[in-house]
Amino acid sequence: MEKVIVFDTTLRDGEQAAGGTLNIEEKLEIARQLERLGVDIIEAGFPIASPGDFEAVRLIAKEVRRPMTCALTHAQPQAVDRAWEAIKEAKHPCIHIFLSASDIHLLHQLKKSQDEILQMARDMVARAKGYLNDVEFSPMDASRTEPAFIYRILEAVIAAGATTVNIPDTVGYATPEEFGSLIAGILANVPNIQRAVVSVHCHNDLGLAVANSLEAIRQGARQVECTVNGIGERAGNAALEEIVMALKTRGDFFNLTTDIDTTQIYKTSRLVSELTGFSIQPNKAVVGANAFRHESGIHQDGILKAPITYEIMDPTSVGIPGSMLVLGKLSGRHAFRDRLAELGYTLSDEALNRAFRAFKELADKKKEVTDRDIESLVAEELRTVAEIYHLEHVQVSCGDHSVPTATVSLRAPDGEIIADAALGAGPVDAVCKAINRLVDVPNQLTEFTVKSVTEGIDAMGEVLIRIESEGRTYSGRGADTDIIVASAKAYMNALNRLLAARKAAEGGGRSD
Amino acid sequence: MEKVIVFDTTLRDGEQAAGGTLNIEEKLEIARQLERLGVDIIEAGFPIASPGDFEAVRLIAKEVRRPMTCALTHAQPQAVDRAWEAIKEAKHPCIHIFLSASDIHLLHQLKKSQDEILQMARDMVARAKGYLNDVEFSPMDASRTEPAFIYRILEAVIAAGATTVNIPDTVGYATPEEFGSLIAGILANVPNIQRAVVSVHCHNDLGLAVANSLEAIRQGARQVECTVNGIGERAGNAALEEIVMALKTRGDFFNLTTDIDTTQIYKTSRLVSELTGFSIQPNKAVVGANAFRHESGIHQDGILKAPITYEIMDPTSVGIPGSMLVLGKLSGRHAFRDRLAELGYTLSDEALNRAFRAFKELADKKKEVTDRDIESLVAEELRTVAEIYHLEHVQVSCGDHSVPTATVSLRAPDGEIIADAALGAGPVDAVCKAINRLVDVPNQLTEFTVKSVTEGIDAMGEVLIRIESEGRTYSGRGADTDIIVASAKAYMNALNRLLAARKAAEGGGRSD
Repeated sequence: MEKVIVFDTTLRDGEQAAGGTLNIEEKLEIARQLERLGVDIIEAGFPIASPGDFEAVRLIAKEVRRPMTCALTHAQPQAVDRAWEAIKEAKHPCIHIFLSASDIHLLHQLKKSQDEILQMARDMVARAKGYLNDVEFSPMDASRTEPAFIYRILEAVIAAGATTVNIPDTVGYATPEEFGSLIAGILANVPNIQRAVVSVHCHNDLGLAVANSLEAIRQGARQVECTVNGIGERAGNAALEEIVMALKTRGDFFNLTTDIDTTQIYKTSRLVSELTGFSIQPNKAVVGANAFRHESGIHQDGILKAPITYEIMDPTSVGIPGSMLVLGKLSGRHAFRDRLAELGYTLSDEALNRAFRAFKELADKKKEVTDRDIESLVAEELRTVAEIYHLEHVQVSCGDHSVPTATVSLRAPDGEIIADAALGAGPVDAVCKAINRLVDVPNQLTEFTVKSVTEGIDAMGEVLIRIESEGRTYSGRGADTDIIVASAKAYMNALNRLLAARKAAEGGGRSD
Repeated sequence: MEKVIVFDTTLRDGEQAAGGTLNIEEKLEIARQLERLGVDIIEAGFPIASPGDFEAVRLIAKEVRRPMTCALTHAQPQAVDRAWEAIKEAKHPCIHIFLSASDIHLLHQLKKSQDEILQMARDMVARAKGYLNDVEFSPMDASRTEPAFIYRILEAVIAAGATTVNIPDTVGYATPEEFGSLIAGILANVPNIQRAVVSVHCHNDLGLAVANSLEAIRQGARQVECTVNGIGERAGNAALEEIVMALKTRGDFFNLTTDIDTTQIYKTSRLVSELTGFSIQPNKAVVGANAFRHESGIHQDGILKAPITYEIMDPTSVGIPGSMLVLGKLSGRHAFRDRLAELGYTLSDEALNRAFRAFKELADKKKEVTDRDIESLVAEELRTVAEIYHLEHVQVSCGDHSVPTATVSLRAPDGEIIADAALGAGPVDAVCKAINRLVDVPNQLTEFTVKSVTEGIDAMGEVLIRIESEGRTYSGRGADTDIIVASAKAYMNALNRLLAARKAAEGGGRSD
């Protein structure tokens, strides 16, 4: 069976979603998991966008071994050079150049002619080609561009050395029929098309990203760009897990395969959701909490008689654990480390020690510590990177006839312990206000979410907080069996990120 | 332009999703909103499933005026009769009969021959036809049935009086190409097909429900069954808002229209999410929090120059409010009532008084009370239906170096005030344990989620709790600026539902 190349852009287009910002350690963790998942190409970021993006791409390129690592750039010489700088240590590097092609973009945004665009595209592909072999080119907004111009530009960039040409439905406007025709037209009308891989990149504004991708594949595209959980700009990108499972489940129809290890899908989905803070709705296909839950009595009856009656995929095929393995109070460091390894986490010795201490504390409060608890502890460990202020102590008293009051103490950067108290509309508000008295950084809380990560009322609660300051969003997370403590950790985490970004800005700054 | 009939099954297939159980008042509230949204048909429930379902269908049928109201039934005489009993007071009643058609279902589940199925289908349609004019028939698992048998069964039920024939992709297995061909085949091969409306009902297991529905419409289907937010069994149904907005945004391609007032989409989506407790992921098309948020610098630049560059739908076209109207401390009952009316809520005088008191309390704690706060207060009001135990008082003390301790007092059914205290792994755990000491009903907490419903750290927090007892799930919600108080309310709400269901079971019980 012929293979479809899976190009994952979770770390680029996915991270580009409003509020999805990841730090470098989180990006590396996701990149490692994408490698385990078996994606062919990891688009690691947009190096010219900011020094942080540059550094993340550089580190991912160094770390990732099997998949190709790709850096995105717009069609400007210094951006292409910067992409190369970031990616050059990769084992399999790739530069991905995009440039608007539609009249709508040319007229309203770029104010350039088609001939000028053609020249820029050719020149920048040639420039990238001077650095490395694998160059991908995307005519942005292709689905709203006249096909004749797409043919011309693709012919030109392939002649200039592009090894992959990617057709984006940038604004999520196409229908499967139209998008499939565009791909068929490209294969029929671009004379040198056989020298490049045809790729597609679909957005989900009308709920059609997966269908458009699959129809393009039917028509001959052999690379698909997608993200885990379908995260990305606006309504997101085509969901990797849906495309892969449709190709697999309907192998009889598509007669194509991918190199994805589908049993890693569930774990990858959870990791991305946890680190980006983007929830997965229960009715999300393949990875939603209800995707394999049958509620109707008639369906349950059928499943008991023969699963095929109502189940087209086996939950274990996407790695949904049959039963959660459980650790407890008496489990030792060895069992803990083994379990981490089975879950796919590799921590430094120091980080392992900290996580193990947290595990023992948790096991004291909670009878059974499940995989989800452990994942949440590890996530907690991974995110304690840039602590400027450290939360020493939090204490709250609240209730419906009392005034919520919080006492907080922090360790300041100079090592001094500072403490204060504040009232609030609720206990979390009181905690944040007490912290604000100690760390005076104006910000606005825009999102607050708590989820129990395991079943049972003694479950670990995981809090996600997003704050906004000077037009930028910072997210923070914290986990604890006490949701007030988890909230305090999450708020400190977000504040520390904000402070770190300010420091970085003073000494360099984001360029976008 | 020709019209596509929108058949909404949020209250039937949507409510059937694991954990989505709604009480009667909530169902009525959604039905009223569906009427405002402009759906043509409301599938109100499955009357034979339980006395509660029966009663909900009966009340919705009485209340709804413009849309047709539909009751689902399987192909058994007493079930058809029960459907009629529930629906007979509707202004425009409809009975929807389903019966498995695929060999997979016939062989493994029903153990009947195709001829027996044909006879059952014909008989039950004729039986329903004896009661009313509008009868819909669905051959279940149609997408895995040989087309020749689908043609036979459709011809037979149309001859017996079916006015709509609905083709379900019950297990979400079809691709757009296959599903479109099935519809085209039906239109070409069923001799009396012009006497019925051809409808489709798609599930989202492979992420293709919307694409399959749209391709079926392209091939001649003129009714589409869908749910708000795409909720439903497993990965859910085709999302109403995505289908409607695809038809509207791509009117140039589809050349079809619906009677949906798209400016009601956002509000309907929020209401359904709030009452079912099913979250909407940020990257959900049309109604997700990020659906209209542009993060990349290049996209933002384009939007500023001309929205058409990156925006194919105007957010106001789906009713996303440009700016949230704000009420405050000084707003009177009149302003509050007016705002409620504008938001589409009609409360009884007594309920209005309670909601207004809650509003004034909130306005004391929070500077600005937004529409979302008000919606959350009203939801709170709507759900305080069957209170058996009433939460009088809750008080908590917790923190990272202290033992979380809760004191709770309740008013018991006999009017007595009872109180107790308990420790816990966290403050919510402590609250639940204290409540459990007072109301001794064994149950297991399966889900705990908190969301801030408005921006700002003094926002209202809304807590969703799901508990399981004897194989059934009960959800409870509570809102307060203090998330511990909100959690206590939510837990009491879930417990009260559990107790009410037990009482009902003692005097009748669910039959499914």
